[in-house]
Amino acid sequence: MTVATTATANPFRLDRTKGDFLLAQVAQDIEQQIALGRLLPGDRLPSERTLAAQLGLSRNTVTAAYRLLEERGAIRRVSHRGAFVCPATPAENPIDWSSKISRQAHLLDEPVLEMLAQSRLPNLRYRLSAGTPALSCFPLTPFRKAVNKVLANDALLAMAIAPTEGQPRLRRAIAALDGAEASHILIVAGAQEGIDLLARCLIEPGDRVIIDRPTFPGAIQALQAAGARLVEWDTAEWSTEVLERLLIAYRPKFIFTMPTFHNPTGRTMDEEQRGKLLRLAARYQVPIVEDDVYSRTRLSGSVPPGLYRMDRHNVVIYLSTFSKVLAPGLRLGWIAAPPHMVKQLSLIKMRANLFTEGLLQLTLAELIENGTFEEHLSRLRATHTGLQKIAVKSLRENFLSEELEFSIPEGGLYIWCRWRRPVDMEAVLLRAQETGASVAPGRAFFAESPDENCFRICFTAGSEYDLPEAIRLLAAAFRGVD
Amino acid sequence: MTVATTATANPFRLDRTKGDFLLAQVAQDIEQQIALGRLLPGDRLPSERTLAAQLGLSRNTVTAAYRLLEERGAIRRVSHRGAFVCPATPAENPIDWSSKISRQAHLLDEPVLEMLAQSRLPNLRYRLSAGTPALSCFPLTPFRKAVNKVLANDALLAMAIAPTEGQPRLRRAIAALDGAEASHILIVAGAQEGIDLLARCLIEPGDRVIIDRPTFPGAIQALQAAGARLVEWDTAEWSTEVLERLLIAYRPKFIFTMPTFHNPTGRTMDEEQRGKLLRLAARYQVPIVEDDVYSRTRLSGSVPPGLYRMDRHNVVIYLSTFSKVLAPGLRLGWIAAPPHMVKQLSLIKMRANLFTEGLLQLTLAELIENGTFEEHLSRLRATHTGLQKIAVKSLRENFLSEELEFSIPEGGLYIWCRWRRPVDMEAVLLRAQETGASVAPGRAFFAESPDENCFRICFTAGSEYDLPEAIRLLAAAFRGVD
Repeated sequence: MTVATTATANPFRLDRTKGDFLLAQVAQDIEQQIALGRLLPGDRLPSERTLAAQLGLSRNTVTAAYRLLEERGAIRRVSHRGAFVCPATPAENPIDWSSKISRQAHLLDEPVLEMLAQSRLPNLRYRLSAGTPALSCFPLTPFRKAVNKVLANDALLAMAIAPTEGQPRLRRAIAALDGAEASHILIVAGAQEGIDLLARCLIEPGDRVIIDRPTFPGAIQALQAAGARLVEWDTAEWSTEVLERLLIAYRPKFIFTMPTFHNPTGRTMDEEQRGKLLRLAARYQVPIVEDDVYSRTRLSGSVPPGLYRMDRHNVVIYLSTFSKVLAPGLRLGWIAAPPHMVKQLSLIKMRANLFTEGLLQLTLAELIENGTFEEHLSRLRATHTGLQKIAVKSLRENFLSEELEFSIPEGGLYIWCRWRRPVDMEAVLLRAQETGASVAPGRAFFAESPDENCFRICFTAGSEYDLPEAIRLLAAAFRGVD
Repeated sequence: MTVATTATANPFRLDRTKGDFLLAQVAQDIEQQIALGRLLPGDRLPSERTLAAQLGLSRNTVTAAYRLLEERGAIRRVSHRGAFVCPATPAENPIDWSSKISRQAHLLDEPVLEMLAQSRLPNLRYRLSAGTPALSCFPLTPFRKAVNKVLANDALLAMAIAPTEGQPRLRRAIAALDGAEASHILIVAGAQEGIDLLARCLIEPGDRVIIDRPTFPGAIQALQAAGARLVEWDTAEWSTEVLERLLIAYRPKFIFTMPTFHNPTGRTMDEEQRGKLLRLAARYQVPIVEDDVYSRTRLSGSVPPGLYRMDRHNVVIYLSTFSKVLAPGLRLGWIAAPPHMVKQLSLIKMRANLFTEGLLQLTLAELIENGTFEEHLSRLRATHTGLQKIAVKSLRENFLSEELEFSIPEGGLYIWCRWRRPVDMEAVLLRAQETGASVAPGRAFFAESPDENCFRICFTAGSEYDLPEAIRLLAAAFRGVD
């Protein structure tokens, strides 16, 4: 048998050594001869030494080529007897896609995400799981007017390639809203994208990140996906003494915290704690990412100044969104950060999705500029206050305080509940889902050692009519399984 | 001196051993005493043995605490003399953010991205750098009608939380357009997001990926960011013989190719090559990602069937977008893939940005369903054909064929040019930019060993009036620097 080779011409550029190509070509040539039927199943290949001499190659190259062919199932080497063509070349099977998925992608906590995804199933009548403001308040008429105004005046701007940092007009409008500078604002497709960009920008695999315990599941997912090892800081205390120990022990890359109407607990860090937190961050040179998604959802009481506003040491990156105060479907949020970080984050956003959609950015700018947004906020507040009262009333009617504990937060969209006795919470929530009501399982909010007895109700996701019914179904699910 | 410690209470949960906390607490206590002025600069700390005895801790714990304090600059240990408080505790400086950025983020080819970003500067009169279809053809009136129809009938659907896979109605409309099934379609925020999700889903750091040479810079960036080592497959030949050698030598994770009106060259792989490519992919079990962003931009000739359509072995994932045929500002594209992969990609998209914006998805569905999209494509084709003629004429008027080579593609938005003589291309393009005209630098399109003499003109980005002027300015830049 003669094995022809075309190994001399190398019409492609690569960074490997020549030997690798030679071996690849030898393997390729043999495979082609098998494919063409010139080498049949059971045929013995020339010995490695013979073929090496025949082709003027080193024996190592031929050995490596045979090894490769064996790995691929094309030939089988039998010691002292030689190499033989295998009965069948690998069939042209459909690809096993699941074998192609990266370890990193597999790391995703699929059950949790599945559960969250499931809770958006269309057959659910009462979805209190995901966080959404009351869409009954959505200012549809001013919104429609604003969209049409943008399409009349700025259609080209809305449709064209735009800066990754965001539409300048929306950056200015948000800066005015927040008392910041436009150059510090980066528009993102919702707070989730903001967290993902920050994770990709700041985290080396293995870095520690301090997060609230519990916290927003999307943050846990995005931070872990970037390779962060999460250290939980208990929101029951938000103790800066504890925090300092964590800073010393773990030297984290940053602190991710939601100090105002925290998701899911509704807690708010007081001003003194905020000051201490900022001083610790500056002292240990550990940045803070302030997730401030809920500060505009105040129902009662007052809100302490935000960390970003209080910051005198340039240690805080700020994150917010219109999803929880206007509509999640808009996919518009923003980061406020030093311009250098805005630039760096933009580079990452550029490779993630180039830039954020234009028409809605310009529409939002119009709604902020013409006062619609602020007016909407007070209407939203009134509606949310009413819904919270209904939810609390329903909870008290359907659950005993000995069995269920919860507190009534001064803002946010949630009531965080804890069943006091042992319970198979997954079974309870699945049963509730089957009867048409979904709430968010507590375990999704913990990076480790989840408190399985918790769940979160988004009271702004239901109407005054279906909130009581949803909570009744939930209570029934507890009775049925408990 | 007495060092008080509160080491016994551990009100926070962590996965470290107890020793780490004790050491952190010892260090913290000493730092607090320094901060409070109870320990002054120059003060000698108790010996490690003394303090260990005093606190009932192991000597190792105290030694580790002292080492930590020394690393942090709070104390200095002098052999045989002891440990001393340093003159000043670290000042509360503004954070050096650049030191916080991950290596991965720094890997971005900033100069290229900067140049691309620069070319979107508002003071540029003629921007032929980035790829955009002729926005003069944008079907504004039907679009406005469709937006208003969606807001009238489906505002809640547009504004609410939506499935990560995309609005069912748009998935169905695209599936019908492509002859696919809706369950195979994943809506993404433009093709760039599609590439980024695929990179994050499939690539382990170090994996090889075969890409066209040259190719879309956004693909190079996203793939490299995920840790891929890129192997270039020359589009001048698209030789399947070469490809097979690459497959054997590198065992790549997948092949990323743009077989139709390739960006930047405009080349199209013929049907025979497509067949061979598919057979190789199936044989070596290496998936293909078919970037099919340009197949609907045909100007003349015919388009061979797409890889995804030809695929009988389930080896192709398909990627497309409305950015190059309707408007890039919409940020809407799609992936077609086996349902299992759609689910896996959705999990990754969920952590990246939860889901894609709703109003424009529903508007696009309306425009596809009512025929506007197909009508628009033929108008777009006519406009692009005219613009290409003007660009070619201007190039011939302003450049000699001995100095500039280019071919006239049958589709796509670009003319890929190569200056035949040595030249400082960066200087030329910068000069052109300064006079108001930008094209894309060729080097951005190569993963390695860039051909610096190339540049890409997007002829659909200019009007019939400014294309000739832009090309005149470009030629002048060559004369001025060459």
